[in-house]
Amino acid sequence: MNRQHEERNLSMVMDFYELTMSNGYFANAKEQELVVFDVFYRSNPDNGGYSIFTGLEQIIDYILNLHFSREDIAYLQRQNLFREEFLEYLANFHFTGDIYAMKEGTVMYPNEPVITVVAPVIDAQLIETAILLEINHQSLVATKARRICNAAGGRLVSDFGARRAHNMDAAIYGARAAYIGGAASTATVLAGQLFDIPVSGTMAHSWVMYFSDEYTAFEKYARMYPDASVLLVDTYDVLRSGVPNAIRVAKEVLEPMGKRLKGIRLDSGDLAYLSKKARRMLDEAGLTDCMIVASNSLDEFTIQSLIEQGACIDSFGVGERLITSKSEPVFGAVYKIAAVWENGIFVPRIKVSENVEKITNPGFKTLYRVYDKDNKAIADLIACWEEKLEDGEMAGYIDPKKPWKKRFFENCTFRPLLEPVFLGGELVKERVGTEEIRQYVRWQLKEEIWEEEQRFVNPHVHYLDMTPAYYKMKTELLKQAKE
Amino acid sequence: MNRQHEERNLSMVMDFYELTMSNGYFANAKEQELVVFDVFYRSNPDNGGYSIFTGLEQIIDYILNLHFSREDIAYLQRQNLFREEFLEYLANFHFTGDIYAMKEGTVMYPNEPVITVVAPVIDAQLIETAILLEINHQSLVATKARRICNAAGGRLVSDFGARRAHNMDAAIYGARAAYIGGAASTATVLAGQLFDIPVSGTMAHSWVMYFSDEYTAFEKYARMYPDASVLLVDTYDVLRSGVPNAIRVAKEVLEPMGKRLKGIRLDSGDLAYLSKKARRMLDEAGLTDCMIVASNSLDEFTIQSLIEQGACIDSFGVGERLITSKSEPVFGAVYKIAAVWENGIFVPRIKVSENVEKITNPGFKTLYRVYDKDNKAIADLIACWEEKLEDGEMAGYIDPKKPWKKRFFENCTFRPLLEPVFLGGELVKERVGTEEIRQYVRWQLKEEIWEEEQRFVNPHVHYLDMTPAYYKMKTELLKQAKE
Repeated sequence: MNRQHEERNLSMVMDFYELTMSNGYFANAKEQELVVFDVFYRSNPDNGGYSIFTGLEQIIDYILNLHFSREDIAYLQRQNLFREEFLEYLANFHFTGDIYAMKEGTVMYPNEPVITVVAPVIDAQLIETAILLEINHQSLVATKARRICNAAGGRLVSDFGARRAHNMDAAIYGARAAYIGGAASTATVLAGQLFDIPVSGTMAHSWVMYFSDEYTAFEKYARMYPDASVLLVDTYDVLRSGVPNAIRVAKEVLEPMGKRLKGIRLDSGDLAYLSKKARRMLDEAGLTDCMIVASNSLDEFTIQSLIEQGACIDSFGVGERLITSKSEPVFGAVYKIAAVWENGIFVPRIKVSENVEKITNPGFKTLYRVYDKDNKAIADLIACWEEKLEDGEMAGYIDPKKPWKKRFFENCTFRPLLEPVFLGGELVKERVGTEEIRQYVRWQLKEEIWEEEQRFVNPHVHYLDMTPAYYKMKTELLKQAKE
Repeated sequence: MNRQHEERNLSMVMDFYELTMSNGYFANAKEQELVVFDVFYRSNPDNGGYSIFTGLEQIIDYILNLHFSREDIAYLQRQNLFREEFLEYLANFHFTGDIYAMKEGTVMYPNEPVITVVAPVIDAQLIETAILLEINHQSLVATKARRICNAAGGRLVSDFGARRAHNMDAAIYGARAAYIGGAASTATVLAGQLFDIPVSGTMAHSWVMYFSDEYTAFEKYARMYPDASVLLVDTYDVLRSGVPNAIRVAKEVLEPMGKRLKGIRLDSGDLAYLSKKARRMLDEAGLTDCMIVASNSLDEFTIQSLIEQGACIDSFGVGERLITSKSEPVFGAVYKIAAVWENGIFVPRIKVSENVEKITNPGFKTLYRVYDKDNKAIADLIACWEEKLEDGEMAGYIDPKKPWKKRFFENCTFRPLLEPVFLGGELVKERVGTEEIRQYVRWQLKEEIWEEEQRFVNPHVHYLDMTPAYYKMKTELLKQAKE
């Protein structure tokens, strides 16, 4: 196993202000003060109904490895901003706090805590960037992959995106996230190796152009991979050259070996038109089992349109628009302080921004998913940390959009979504493999999450409710802040 | 120096088909056949007039380090697709070819070769993904940074993007690219450390909210950093609380120490309105030298608009829209075979796609930048590899958009843009520091590149011409391909 990727020292992938603030906390002898930070995001990409919480395993790697090497300390020293005692403290630093998080792969919604950090303020501050970056990147790509797979309606989707990824890690962890979101395979070999994702690939135009003619190129490939040849047919002319040559190879090279041509790939032109024509040609040649793979700037919208047009495509190779989430390349999770330990209790903090949507949910809180008797997730519910909800109880709640209404959950079950990951700096959670996370996504979307939240156009907006006690705390705090 | 980032084994960040094709080349005893591949791209992001060639130093790192470890070979073996002899060959593989490339930081244009690889076909094929990924990511961000800096018109631009980057490398190398494109600093500490980029940062809302009140938070920070305090004033109310508290700290804390308040930062609300109001309040308090920093989803368009509105902003913190190049997150450089060595010569290859814009420029070629007597770059010129152009000569050329016209360059100088980087697998080029690359970008845009190519709206389209010999070769090849 290639461990160096987990063990690389990425500790210094942090924003400089995290260090200057920590230096300040340290000097004010407040470095041991506990605080609560929440990670949440404000809206789903592409106006979707949900997102997929992804990247937790890499956050665990980061925190387990978080340390400042001698070179790191020397570099900080040269900035002439940090006190010697603080740098000594950093030289011995390791994370000592608690982290609660959703299970990786959980379906998540805007404005609810997906990770909660309870830690000394310096510990909490220093992990901000790494947590956000990992969640923002992988949740973005996993969510996009899920959308693309939904559009493909059961047809295979493969990640072909490495060459357009935002550098190496974006290719590697993007492939991981795409697989979690539902892609069947990746073309990125290192991602296959690190995360046990099936790797796949066909051939490039260079293979076809390297040989003196297209037929020779196909023939050589078919002899090499009689069980796994997907021939790229658009180098010269799809219908007049590519498909006929592929059929000839199937007949003249593979059939005598007792083999079938696995597939052809279209990478340009009108994919709806060409795939239908190609399908007919293949079928007429008796190659009804030869699949058609399509690629070329695909995403959920083009795939949906191709299927509506009756395109005969069995498998989609999706590159740049998946790996960069092109239509919406930013996932905006933020990391906000929610409470500070003062005189033996966590005193909630609220940010009252000029932009209303930037007002935060204050306090040390927890989050439940509420299920009806059919086990469908009907709402998420924010509660104060110390509140406990019992299954089946008549539980009052507030919809913060209509706070004047009295509402109750009846015959519901409540599942807490935030589970301990680190306690006192110790990892308390088992590591989870990529395949298991992927299965969990699929299971939730099939069993728990309403179909109405999964459609592309105008999806149902998942309810995010509050317990009466939590709602009261928030409104009182807002009132105080206004005064 | 933190070397492990350069030394990480990223060899397997390749597309799987590169390995299956190489296995095929190997089996066909053609692995030693020389080929020519070109890297080029088809259009500038954001309808710009040019792009900045960035990422070459990391490509050099990749190729110097390219090797297959025992684990890599074992992984490939488990795929049950590769011949034993090929895997043995890979176990001893190192790159043996030639690479020519533009100097890093060169202003580049669509459809011209920016890197040319001349190598045995396996060597050339295996480096495809890494080359593309690096050029695509870093050129994208450098070009975006240049646009944002142009819009800022001399005001400082800082990269604040790590938390929205597409994973760790996107933050690290994105910061590098942003600096090359003109950003003055980055908030990403590791990027500062690795590439000697100035690091900067202000404070987070969490600092302000951690303390019992805003004034206390500002005061503590100012005492800690009397020379470097930029106070974040939008946590509660910019004009009624933030700015007045900042002024109070400047007067009550800093002035008695003989210090001046360095700046304030606005991160929400109407930045044009708030900055003008804040400027007036600061000026009336005698803090005319206190700078105003603005952030919050900025890019070249919002910055241009803010400046047109007379916003009083001295410095911009730019995050997600820079680090992801949000308006256009894909840079589409491609890697296409251009020639194959057959019977002692390089025989050109052309791809005739269903999409006209995907037709390639064939053959082993070179690229000149043509300068007029004022040393302005008036065109780029593709020539056959063996053609030599002499300065000052009357040189005939073809504009492929108007091939019927006879045209001549008179009193021009010709600078070859593709320089040897690797020859026979040996690095033959000196490594270049990030600062030098940044200066080179700035110098070209000031001295060589027409202003008309640098505007945002409808920029002048740089001419890409061909020598008569090259044009003749291409048209004949196209004609053959059609037959």
